[in-house]
Formats: sequence, structure tokens, C-alpha cells
Amino acid sequence: MQRYFVSEDQLNGSTVTITGDDVKHIARVMRMQEGEEIIVSNNAGRTVLAKLKKLSESDIQAEVLEELDPKTELPIKVTVAQGLPKGDKLELITQKGTELGVSCFQPFQASRSIVKWDMKKSKKKVERLEKIAKEAAEQSYREIIPTIKEAASFTQLLETIEGYTHTIVAYEESAKTGEASNLHNVLNQVKSGDSVLIVIGPEGGLTEEEVSELEGKGAVLCGLGPRIIRTETAPLYVMAAISYHLELMR
Amino acid sequence: MQRYFVSEDQLNGSTVTITGDDVKHIARVMRMQEGEEIIVSNNAGRTVLAKLKKLSESDIQAEVLEELDPKTELPIKVTVAQGLPKGDKLELITQKGTELGVSCFQPFQASRSIVKWDMKKSKKKVERLEKIAKEAAEQSYREIIPTIKEAASFTQLLETIEGYTHTIVAYEESAKTGEASNLHNVLNQVKSGDSVLIVIGPEGGLTEEEVSELEGKGAVLCGLGPRIIRTETAPLYVMAAISYHLELMR
Repeated sequence: MQRYFVSEDQLNGSTVTITGDDVKHIARVMRMQEGEEIIVSNNAGRTVLAKLKKLSESDIQAEVLEELDPKTELPIKVTVAQGLPKGDKLELITQKGTELGVSCFQPFQASRSIVKWDMKKSKKKVERLEKIAKEAAEQSYREIIPTIKEAASFTQLLETIEGYTHTIVAYEESAKTGEASNLHNVLNQVKSGDSVLIVIGPEGGLTEEEVSELEGKGAVLCGLGPRIIRTETAPLYVMAAISYHLELMR
Repeated sequence: MQRYFVSEDQLNGSTVTITGDDVKHIARVMRMQEGEEIIVSNNAGRTVLAKLKKLSESDIQAEVLEELDPKTELPIKVTVAQGLPKGDKLELITQKGTELGVSCFQPFQASRSIVKWDMKKSKKKVERLEKIAKEAAEQSYREIIPTIKEAASFTQLLETIEGYTHTIVAYEESAKTGEASNLHNVLNQVKSGDSVLIVIGPEGGLTEEEVSELEGKGAVLCGLGPRIIRTETAPLYVMAAISYHLELMR
């Protein structure tokens, strides 16, 4: 069944109002009619089954049939801090990371980031990623749409670390020296409700200085296996490992 | 350091001969000179450090300096049987799957595959995926290049199952009903040297008939967490879980 996110005021008691692009999607792409059912989430913990009542060009009215409880969120909140990668990799990371349960994406300007975050285009860039996150959240039946932050400087990123229960750094050099138990050790300590920050370097990796500053703030350096994986593959590996450890290893 | 694969006869005793596109890559892209070092694998278990001795337009000669033992292969051989997906998703799966340790990619024609495998273009398609696998294997420091098979029919796929120690089916309906321990149970049973087949449906999923035929051959249906992940994300999730379980959970 098709799933849509609306704002909190659009899911009001037993009435749903759908506006914007979703109107086109329901009426033109899906060619749905009055009486058909959709799933609607308000991005604040409420998800309902609703029946379409009235379709117009500008908005769609639907009626709540049933309160749902999809339970599709990870038991922890994960923020992916991604050193700005080249090309459209941030889009891939946003789409796949959303499917895998990320709560927040925080791009940051790493020393070795070749791409610079263009502050003039920042709003547009964030909006583009928010659209990708919304569509992926609908597709994967998430209860919330992950937040997209504007790019932070490395210093700004460091300052956020104390706000998290755990900080993990995906570190290639750890893998090369055979470090192979830190990720598992951290995940063994994680408790429901914890917040976890995952820091991932850009294509050239994090510098030694960046790594030692992260360590100074209590971050744990983790190898992700013996193979060298690309910057955009690293967050997906960590998210799959988190899901496997917390949701499947029972 | 740059890594290259050569055929077995090109890594002969203490001499390496590099031909084809890699000559251009070394001389023009990397602008390397005599005396510089590269890592060379013969895709059959031998990996060496070599020093460039003589560069020409057609080939490059290098001398073996040291035998290496990267130990970057998973302890098991994993074949990903992917129901033919739309667009260029098979390319993404090949690149990321190679980084994550896949040994063989076996596309198959599933009932709900919208794309058909064009037998006339089959050789070209396989060559394109082989090139992606080779580049990803070099980048991720694999010891072997994964094999790419031509698309099989579902019946042909079924016939291969008895050749594997374990067969896992990524099954969305399992996830929906809360199945959450089969993947972990299988990975707990896996032993070094085992062969594992992972079967993944196309965008529309496997049909009930396909699933029951797979089950009849002893395949285990596994949910991949409560979120609904796209067809191209499923093999990456399973490969990351395999690496996490076998390489990091010590």
C-alpha cells in the first residue's frame, strides 16, 4: 500500500488533508479514486490507515480508518556525519541510509573533502536531499523522515559529540592493522533510546589530526572488515551491522 | 598504493607483465615512472608487491619485490542471485557487492522482473559488469575478482541450490510478520570454507510460488529488519551482516 508523510496539522483527529506533490502522485501517478486506501504518517509518531474521500486539483481529503503501529524505527537514533564526498554520493547515502534507519544526516567539511559545500546553494541542496529522504522513508515504511543538516565544519562537528551516547569513527587504518572488535564492542553496550554518531571520512579518508581530535572527544575508531570500502559504502555497512545486531540477533 | 589484477601467466615467477587498459592507467592516469611500486594479484591467490622496470605503449614490465598476503577475502564463498532489477541497479550491486566480499553474481529472470535479459547483448552486459567488478576488486584490495554469470532462468537457479552449503532468501513477507532470527541462525551455523547462496527478488519481490520452490530445496527465508528495503539494498545488507558476523564479532 502507498505511504505518505504529512505535517502534524494535516493529520487532525480523524481527518487527513494531503497537499502539494503528493496530490499529483495519488491522483495522476497512482490514479487512485475515492474509496481507496493509503497509509499516512505525521512524522511525529502517528501512522494511520486512511480512506480517500474527496480528490481535487489542490488537495485530497481522507478519513482515518485505523491507527497503525508499524514499529519500523531502530531502537536507537543514529546520526551519520559524512565527510563531503564527490558527485552525487550524498544522494545515494541519503536514500540508502534512510532505508536502513538513519535518523539524521550531518554532512561535514573534512580536510580531504575535494568538494566544498556551497553556502549559496545550501538551502537548495538540503531541500533536494530532504525530498530523497522523504521518498525513501515512504518507500521503506519509516515512521519518521530523517533530518538533513547543512554541512558543518569539522570544529562544529566535534562540538556536537558530547550530545551523543556513543560516537563511532569508520577508520580505514584500523581495518588495515586488523582492528576487528570495536564496532561489536560498542554495539554490545548500546541501549534502547541511545543516540549514536557515526563519523565517516571523504574519499581520501580522515587525516590523522582529525582522527586524534575525534578520539580526544571519546570517539571509538572502528574497522569495517579487511576490505577497503568506499566512503559511500561505509555508512551502509555500519547501518546494516546496527540493524543486524539490534534487530536480528535475538 | 595502486592495485592491479593480471592473468596467471602474466605473473610468472619474479616477473610481471601488464597489458591492456592497465598500461594506460599506470602510464597516463597515474603518470607512474620506472622504479615506482604497485600491488599485483593474479586472481588465483597470489598477490605481490612489484617495482615498475620498463614502460612502453603496449606493455609494462615489473619485478616482484615481495610476496603479500592481504587476507581480505571472507572465510566463505558468497553467490548473490539477484532477480533482474530495473535500470543500472545491477551495476551498483556489482560494485558495492564486490567491495563487501561477494564471490559470484548470478542474475536470474524472476517472475516479477520487468526487465528481460537480452541474450543478444548478454556477452556485452557481462563484460561491462566484469569491468566494474575488476575495478571494485582492485579498489577494495580483494584477492579475487568476483565472477559474473549470464542471467539464469528461475528453474536453472533452483538446480544450482544443492551445490551450496546454505541458501538464504531475502524475503520481505518474513520481515512483515516479524521474522527476525533466521539470518542470525544461518550465520551461526556457517563454517569457514562454506558456500552460501543469497537469493533476492526484483522490485516486485519473489512470488509465493518462487518462495515455496526455494523452500522446497532447503532455502531459509530471512527477514532483513522491519523496514522495507529496495532490491538493490538487500544484497548489501546481507553482505554487511555476513562481514560483521564472521569478521568483526570476535
